[in-house]
Amino acid sequence: MADRLSDSRFARRFGLSTPIALAPMAFGTGGALATTCAKAGALALIGGAYGDLEFTSTQYSAAEEALCDTPEALARLGCGFITWRLEEDSSALDWLLDREAKPAAIMLSFGDPTALAKRIIAADIALICQVQTLAMAREAVEAGASVIVAQGAEAGGHGMNALDGRSTFTLVPEIADYLAAKAPHVQLLAAGGIADGRGLAAALMLGADGALVGSRLWASAESLAPEAAIAQAVAADGDSTARSKVFDILREKNWPAHFDFRALRNGIHREWEGRLDELGADPAGAIANYKAGVEARDYSRAHVTVGEGTGLIKDAPSAGEIIAAIDAEARVLLQ
Amino acid sequence: MADRLSDSRFARRFGLSTPIALAPMAFGTGGALATTCAKAGALALIGGAYGDLEFTSTQYSAAEEALCDTPEALARLGCGFITWRLEEDSSALDWLLDREAKPAAIMLSFGDPTALAKRIIAADIALICQVQTLAMAREAVEAGASVIVAQGAEAGGHGMNALDGRSTFTLVPEIADYLAAKAPHVQLLAAGGIADGRGLAAALMLGADGALVGSRLWASAESLAPEAAIAQAVAADGDSTARSKVFDILREKNWPAHFDFRALRNGIHREWEGRLDELGADPAGAIANYKAGVEARDYSRAHVTVGEGTGLIKDAPSAGEIIAAIDAEARVLLQ
Repeated sequence: MADRLSDSRFARRFGLSTPIALAPMAFGTGGALATTCAKAGALALIGGAYGDLEFTSTQYSAAEEALCDTPEALARLGCGFITWRLEEDSSALDWLLDREAKPAAIMLSFGDPTALAKRIIAADIALICQVQTLAMAREAVEAGASVIVAQGAEAGGHGMNALDGRSTFTLVPEIADYLAAKAPHVQLLAAGGIADGRGLAAALMLGADGALVGSRLWASAESLAPEAAIAQAVAADGDSTARSKVFDILREKNWPAHFDFRALRNGIHREWEGRLDELGADPAGAIANYKAGVEARDYSRAHVTVGEGTGLIKDAPSAGEIIAAIDAEARVLLQ
Repeated sequence: MADRLSDSRFARRFGLSTPIALAPMAFGTGGALATTCAKAGALALIGGAYGDLEFTSTQYSAAEEALCDTPEALARLGCGFITWRLEEDSSALDWLLDREAKPAAIMLSFGDPTALAKRIIAADIALICQVQTLAMAREAVEAGASVIVAQGAEAGGHGMNALDGRSTFTLVPEIADYLAAKAPHVQLLAAGGIADGRGLAAALMLGADGALVGSRLWASAESLAPEAAIAQAVAADGDSTARSKVFDILREKNWPAHFDFRALRNGIHREWEGRLDELGADPAGAIANYKAGVEARDYSRAHVTVGEGTGLIKDAPSAGEIIAAIDAEARVLLQ
């Protein structure tokens, strides 16, 4: 009997051993983490994020070199970007598209994918679009996505704000129904809150073809995140995060209005979460305090970017062990 | 082989044919809906809600009478209340506790259950506590709950506000881990977003013993909700709800600060959702407009209480058909 993991259509589409994708986390997913995940059988998306050419080309090339002896793993290497940032500077995407060896997939998140999608599809590269609502899923299908990532507001880092956003538990089956009716060839991944085999199994029950895993792989030996930040996340329970504009204001990132950011709800977050207008109007003092916190690795002031799933994370082993454990636990549950 | 539904420990504990509980929805769950759900094999909790003695005793007695010829279904009848309201007026709970025939269970939601729990447990009635965070689950275990309901913020009606709240997808496995370590005899239901067999199957994968179903059973032939309100929910997609204090201010309900309310995000909600301070300071005009909307069954002004799962609801058949369909779909998925 075909098993539900290695024989899933997502695993078959990208030559994976389990239907897991590594999230392209800004400042988290570099070449080492992608290399380990690709070798472990997952789709591995470098965190191209804000589209820094130097970072993207260095990390992508490092993974490519590390995987050159394992072509089946190299074929699982891709990259992800923040859509609205590429509209300002697409040099990192240009670099990827101009190369002879093509990435397995390019993922776009946060913004209208229509214009960039045309270039990616014209280069014959699989387009993955992350969405936060049913309406955005329709837009992504129109743009030509091969895979939709349905991201619930429980996810760490950027996502839709709470008023406009959706949760993984309802967004996945609703988009699955939409795709089944209108675009059955388009695959669906669940994202937001998937940190163990229970989450992967639940995602499949809800109608997803697989899962995009962020926080759980961010807290790994190969992550670019500082060890001290990972230690904070490992110690935290899932009640300890919150979603707001606080860290985007403090980091001076000019994000579109309907997106905000989930991280550990530390002292500086609590200080400002109820006074966003005040913070936005005169942020200089708070920004200086935040920057000093980052410099000192003082995580009562610096941000620790994890989602609600942090409560399921109790260690930070190799990403290869993490993927094997998720796969094994899901396999038992789905038997 | 024991099946995962009718042989689940939640089904065995309450003599159910499937591990589903009908949510005790204020102004939704009356005697007729509870009767149908109990006959269909689910735990059926009358919506005692704000603790109105007249409503609770009438609806509970009606269900009891309708079930008097089916003792196995009568044994599935219980009631649910809003904890902080019972602290102001416990007459409906007093009535239930003073009767000779005991309810199968009493559910408490929204507030510290400690004091009321003592009376319920002393009456030898199973205590179900609904919680929205891991910290509240700990409190409920301390209070002596037999069953914890882990309610994610995707749920319709009252729940934890977005900043403090959790989602079903992460809250369930985290509380499951906590219970496995500290109180393995306490059972766990998932609530928030469960509207079909995919949701029930996913809840079990995440570590729940069963699911509490609200919106899907609110939109049924036996619901106390007006048909025109149900029609609005059936037509809406899951992007169409929002969580805020708007309707509590308009309904002049004095809810504790950290709870708010998810409903269809209609015109009056959009009008005020960004100006809550202004609404709270001078609500008279908006309240008059809202009340006129309720009177006229104009759902651009009156509230329609459903969660994000409304996007999975396409009809309003008998609750018996709904429970049978959830059970059958979950059964296929779990095979």
